[in-house]
Amino acid sequence: MQAKVYVTLKKGVHDPQGEAVRHTLAAMGHKDVAGVRVGKYIEVALSDKTHEEAEATMKEICEKLLANTVIESYRYEIS
Amino acid sequence: MQAKVYVTLKKGVHDPQGEAVRHTLAAMGHKDVAGVRVGKYIEVALSDKTHEEAEATMKEICEKLLANTVIESYRYEIS
Repeated sequence: MQAKVYVTLKKGVHDPQGEAVRHTLAAMGHKDVAGVRVGKYIEVALSDKTHEEAEATMKEICEKLLANTVIESYRYEIS
Repeated sequence: MQAKVYVTLKKGVHDPQGEAVRHTLAAMGHKDVAGVRVGKYIEVALSDKTHEEAEATMKEICEKLLANTVIESYRYEIS
């Protein structure tokens, strides 16, 4: 099975990387870009046999390793 | 309008960050994780009025800034 994980900074958390991208785009002439937020996209290949096992694995590894839940949100899709 | 951009390393490009995550997960007991690839997820807020304008903006900023097309692939969704 495969999981796709999206990790984003929570609303209100300052995103210097996104700000740097926005400033660079403005300097390149892209005044049409109003805001940029940069997060992580992670693909995980799983040997779990069932959707339930994969769900349990993903919840645990997201909480423990992939996301810092103090400042980041995550969601995942299993297929 | 808003765009969501997914940037991933092309197949065959070595991903040391993903390998580090996989090793850490194995050390944590997650033998069910067979592979990890780490990419970027970027949310872009656009002041473009039409889907066509947003499409043109996104194609340009992905090619010029957000992805290194030598080693990375990208896709985006505009909504």
